[in-house]
Amino acid sequence: MGTVPLVHDDAAGALALVVFDEIRAARGTDYVNNFWRALAMDPDLLAATWARLQAVMAPGTLDPLTKELIYIAVSVTNGCGYCVHSHTAASRGKSMTPAQHAELLPVIAMSAQTNALATALQVETDDRFQA
Amino acid sequence: MGTVPLVHDDAAGALALVVFDEIRAARGTDYVNNFWRALAMDPDLLAATWARLQAVMAPGTLDPLTKELIYIAVSVTNGCGYCVHSHTAASRGKSMTPAQHAELLPVIAMSAQTNALATALQVETDDRFQA
Amino acid sequence: MGTVPLVHDDAAGALALVVFDEIRAARGTDYVNNFWRALAMDPDLLAATWARLQAVMAPGTLDPLTKELIYIAVSVTNGCGYCVHSHTAASRGKSMTPAQHAELLPVIAMSAQTNALATALQVETDDRFQA
Amino acid sequence: MGTVPLVHDDAAGALALVVFDEIRAARGTDYVNNFWRALAMDPDLLAATWARLQAVMAPGTLDPLTKELIYIAVSVTNGCGYCVHSHTAASRGKSMTPAQHAELLPVIAMSAQTNALATALQVETDDRFQA
Amino acid sequence: MGTVPLVHDDAAGALALVVFDEIRAARGTDYVNNFWRALAMDPDLLAATWARLQAVMAPGTLDPLTKELIYIAVSVTNGCGYCVHSHTAASRGKSMTPAQHAELLPVIAMSAQTNALATALQVETDDRFQA
Amino acid sequence: MGTVPLVHDDAAGALALVVFDEIRAARGTDYVNNFWRALAMDPDLLAATWARLQAVMAPGTLDPLTKELIYIAVSVTNGCGYCVHSHTAASRGKSMTPAQHAELLPVIAMSAQTNALATALQVETDDRFQA
Repeated sequence: MGTVPLVHDDAAGALALVVFDEIRAARGTDYVNNFWRALAMDPDLLAATWARLQAVMAPGTLDPLTKELIYIAVSVTNGCGYCVHSHTAASRGKSMTPAQHAELLPVIAMSAQTNALATALQVETDDRFQA
Repeated sequence: MGTVPLVHDDAAGALALVVFDEIRAARGTDYVNNFWRALAMDPDLLAATWARLQAVMAPGTLDPLTKELIYIAVSVTNGCGYCVHSHTAASRGKSMTPAQHAELLPVIAMSAQTNALATALQVETDDRFQA
Repeated sequence: MGTVPLVHDDAAGALALVVFDEIRAARGTDYVNNFWRALAMDPDLLAATWARLQAVMAPGTLDPLTKELIYIAVSVTNGCGYCVHSHTAASRGKSMTPAQHAELLPVIAMSAQTNALATALQVETDDRFQA
Repeated sequence: MGTVPLVHDDAAGALALVVFDEIRAARGTDYVNNFWRALAMDPDLLAATWARLQAVMAPGTLDPLTKELIYIAVSVTNGCGYCVHSHTAASRGKSMTPAQHAELLPVIAMSAQTNALATALQVETDDRFQA
Repeated sequence: MGTVPLVHDDAAGALALVVFDEIRAARGTDYVNNFWRALAMDPDLLAATWARLQAVMAPGTLDPLTKELIYIAVSVTNGCGYCVHSHTAASRGKSMTPAQHAELLPVIAMSAQTNALATALQVETDDRFQA
Repeated sequence: MGTVPLVHDDAAGALALVVFDEIRAARGTDYVNNFWRALAMDPDLLAATWARLQAVMAPGTLDPLTKELIYIAVSVTNGCGYCVHSHTAASRGKSMTPAQHAELLPVIAMSAQTNALATALQVETDDRFQA
């Protein structure tokens, strides 16, 4: 029902299978979700996107759950329903509690609201905010 | 230079002054930034927005810096330059390090990228992601 | 400072001059604002855009000020600073009062907020809302 | 099918039930639409959002239908399908005629179009548009 | 299931039927897709949109497939699922190969990514980029 | 004036200097534009972004100018002024003519317009568009 067919294991080439196996190993599940199966329409794009995602979402000075919450926030703002679903699920997999989910949403909504107000008012940036 | 004049203290009515004073007290500074001075074109809107922001950004199951990072992420995605500046400054005021800032940006960028891919592919939501 | 130079009257071709004169006549002013002077990089695009705008914004079952307020709302949401400025000015030219402006902004902001919430929750459309 | 379950009356806590009853009373119907039932995942967020919506959408210097049309315009621009459906239905409930609906759409579309053109041209704001 | 019913041939007025026939003739098919049948809720809007689309998408200094790819890119960025589907299909009808589709997607995704980075950094425009 | 300082050569570390030199070599100019100097706040992000951009924008089944036009289209739709400027300049560097520029803009604008209409109408995807 997408713009490309999903690539199932029996139709996947060698590179796509390598990535699918990496996804399974990283997540400890046999399931490969639709995003990666659609992206396999181009194995190079699949491999590059998966590799970059692993690098970006790895623990660092920000913890993995914080990164997932930020991912949800961007996905909501871009209106990507699939992404909202998949990263909400991923956040739960990284121990997001219902209370944290409930506290995330008004932050996103408040930002959307003041973004609109600042844009409507065309507020000029205060000198002290500039680097 | 905005669509409304900034309201300075000497032109502000009683309600706006109360909010300006709350802003100063909450932040421990005499400075009231342009967003609030523009919003004072409607004192009720000013008061309601400030009150709600305080409630939403208060510490809870998510810490204040995490909330600011989420605010930056939404502001970037909405393309609100003023908001990006003010919440980057606020994050620094809440002890965001340069390393954290540097780690935030690729998460936002990665999300923007996979949001676009998922939308271009019109990926259908996996059953297991649904609540 | 844009991506194309502004076309001033002395450099404008015949078609652009006709449109510039229509703009002046429609508005009762000698001033042609920068949008139209930039768009004159392609006189056909200039003429088609101006003609369509006149048709769309003409009084009908919605009055001209209502149409300008809707235009502001879309421009804010798209983050087009120029458009927010020009249509806020146009709304004032069509008698928008400061009270109306102050009442417009929270409607835009409230919508931005509940749009974000509905997207974050991935709310399914109620059957009764469908045509 | 959303990211959270809908909260039906028999599972709702006291605060959520109060809001559900206010929604029913305000609209003269027993039906509470999915948005509010999803938002009830956090009763405080539900109550704050409902209260603010009532305040913002109340008749004032802009009439209720004008406010709904603005809400549709923002929802379309943000790409929130649920919101487009619910506020189109709400506009009909506030007596939007098919002719008004047909006249609203090209205003939204025209704005989207000139927003894109102004952004592509990076038109600088005319001095006379600034407050 | 949209916000307006689709207008089928037997319910269409004279103007809508003329446009439907033009669509059929231009595409060499009896099928008129849902967008045009929904837009027929306002025959004037239908006619104006179809006429403008034909003018804009005609071969010129950019070839028709390039124009369709640009249309996909904008539709993805605006998050319009219907439009992504219809213009991906149209691109295939204009001989877009799977390899071209696979090469289009990372350009869109890369742009989304650097757009986010440039906005997060609030990079100032280099003098040499200005017209 | 951004959210981070620009990194000039004398303050750049070894990795950033390598990337700056690659940028100079690839473009045949000594000039490194502000985006890369801001991104050098994180040399790893700088290097990863530059490497990926080179891979994505390389000639393939789509020619380099077509890719730049697509980049402009996405940047316009995301409202990234810096990006619109830099990729319009890059397109000129890849021989975009004024006529091509003038033909690109209405395609972007037309798409923005029909995206809005399809979203306002909540048009359902035709079965035949699905992969």
